[in-house]
Amino acid sequence: MKLVRFGPPGEERPGILDAAGTVRDASELVHDWSGNSLSARFLKHVSKSDLLRLPEAEKGARLGCPLAATGKIVCVGLNYADHATETGFDLPQEPLVFFKSPTALSGPFDPIVIPQTASAVDWEVELAVVMGGVARNVSCEEAMSFVAGFAVANDLTERTWQFDRGGQWSKAKSADTFAPLGPWIVTPDELPPSLDLRIWLEKNGEPRQESRTSKLVFAVDRIIAHLSEFMTLLPGDLLLTGTPYGVAYNKPDPDYLKEGDLVSCGIDGLGDQRCVVRAAPRGTRGEKVA
Amino acid sequence: MKLVRFGPPGEERPGILDAAGTVRDASELVHDWSGNSLSARFLKHVSKSDLLRLPEAEKGARLGCPLAATGKIVCVGLNYADHATETGFDLPQEPLVFFKSPTALSGPFDPIVIPQTASAVDWEVELAVVMGGVARNVSCEEAMSFVAGFAVANDLTERTWQFDRGGQWSKAKSADTFAPLGPWIVTPDELPPSLDLRIWLEKNGEPRQESRTSKLVFAVDRIIAHLSEFMTLLPGDLLLTGTPYGVAYNKPDPDYLKEGDLVSCGIDGLGDQRCVVRAAPRGTRGEKVA
Repeated sequence: MKLVRFGPPGEERPGILDAAGTVRDASELVHDWSGNSLSARFLKHVSKSDLLRLPEAEKGARLGCPLAATGKIVCVGLNYADHATETGFDLPQEPLVFFKSPTALSGPFDPIVIPQTASAVDWEVELAVVMGGVARNVSCEEAMSFVAGFAVANDLTERTWQFDRGGQWSKAKSADTFAPLGPWIVTPDELPPSLDLRIWLEKNGEPRQESRTSKLVFAVDRIIAHLSEFMTLLPGDLLLTGTPYGVAYNKPDPDYLKEGDLVSCGIDGLGDQRCVVRAAPRGTRGEKVA
Repeated sequence: MKLVRFGPPGEERPGILDAAGTVRDASELVHDWSGNSLSARFLKHVSKSDLLRLPEAEKGARLGCPLAATGKIVCVGLNYADHATETGFDLPQEPLVFFKSPTALSGPFDPIVIPQTASAVDWEVELAVVMGGVARNVSCEEAMSFVAGFAVANDLTERTWQFDRGGQWSKAKSADTFAPLGPWIVTPDELPPSLDLRIWLEKNGEPRQESRTSKLVFAVDRIIAHLSEFMTLLPGDLLLTGTPYGVAYNKPDPDYLKEGDLVSCGIDGLGDQRCVVRAAPRGTRGEKVA
């Protein structure tokens, strides 16, 4: 299944993409896509429904963030060897872990808003994992049974905030719209078990990142098992698995995002995002533009 | 007001302490203490209620974590000069920021559970701030108007996970029961504007930490203003403001927590915690003991 949320910002309803690619309104089946509605048991129940009986969403309805709420966004850094090299770090001996604020989530076609005091906003396309179970001290062998689905994410990062403002990375990763997610959450049965998928990002139509998700240093099962040693993962939690080579940082002349840029990115089988970059309005409290 | 939650783990109900120190059941006023029920406007509405009309909670009812759910726990590190010195770090030029997993929250009298693979669990008593408004790019001058209340927190930390397992600190801070909170959330009107309060922690009755919250390098207003530049703070978000001198780490012979230890801590006006230390049961998935 492909799970979506559609409608105006803040008023999204849960939906499911049918075989013909039409968004169906799933409100009669589920309150929203979050928490226990992403458990393996409930998603199996939903998958047995006759989707064609569900009403169609309005044509051209906006697709919002496919996850209604998340308890936490846990990120793994430096998880592609070529990206670790380009940023000048050694490859971690085990997953490097940091959090993004849940308030960073936004839709796959919403604007990316450059915060008022930001000057070095960079892209990082990543494979996102949506948890579907309560995972504590789980093994690699059983880890994938705790996954509700996968999605495309962009782990936007302000590089001066990351490296010059206190050492820990969350400060650089948590602004509003710094986590576009979607367009949909794809359940594992629709993907090859190898998870060997093309992942790519373009800025203004020019290639910036291209790799395959099979090149993760720590694969998804290893990430889940590792994190579950240190914290409890809950249904609806979101894991970002790291970005491949090709970010702006550490280029001789970094082409950080500026107003009017178009960021497109995607992963085979998980759909594509298209986000226009905007500057936050000055002299306000920086309310979300989206 | 002093806001509490009482009842068995997972079945807590919202309560308010009356002037005589009796817990009153506030279920008829509020669904629970989280999100918008912690907004300044709603708390003002609640404060005008006749608390003596509310039913008394059962005598001896367990007090749980006074916050029902939190969108995020944002922590400031090295925010007392003497603690930065003892851990061997320079004093940060601006707040050092990291996240704790919301699943770390537990009650003020619940056990602290040492995770299966942990070997260096340390204490950090801290002044906690519960947000009561949506804060984006707010100034120091207006920051305190976004506060719902204050509480005692213990920011438990596994030191080998913090320093030897990947560099970022969240991995060391996020285990279940690593964030005992309470016993209550105290609204700002009950505290001196100076926030000059004694803060202390004892292990097995022996003093370990003692300072005053007025010694914060970055005060609460500065922390809120600073964080709100980098992320949106929401009602119910929890901020931990750093710990004073006296943790186990960096002693010649660190007396890290072990099964059977009793950790007591408190802040004047905000009440005291008492938590017994337990080892996680082996051969299980480490379910919460509490």
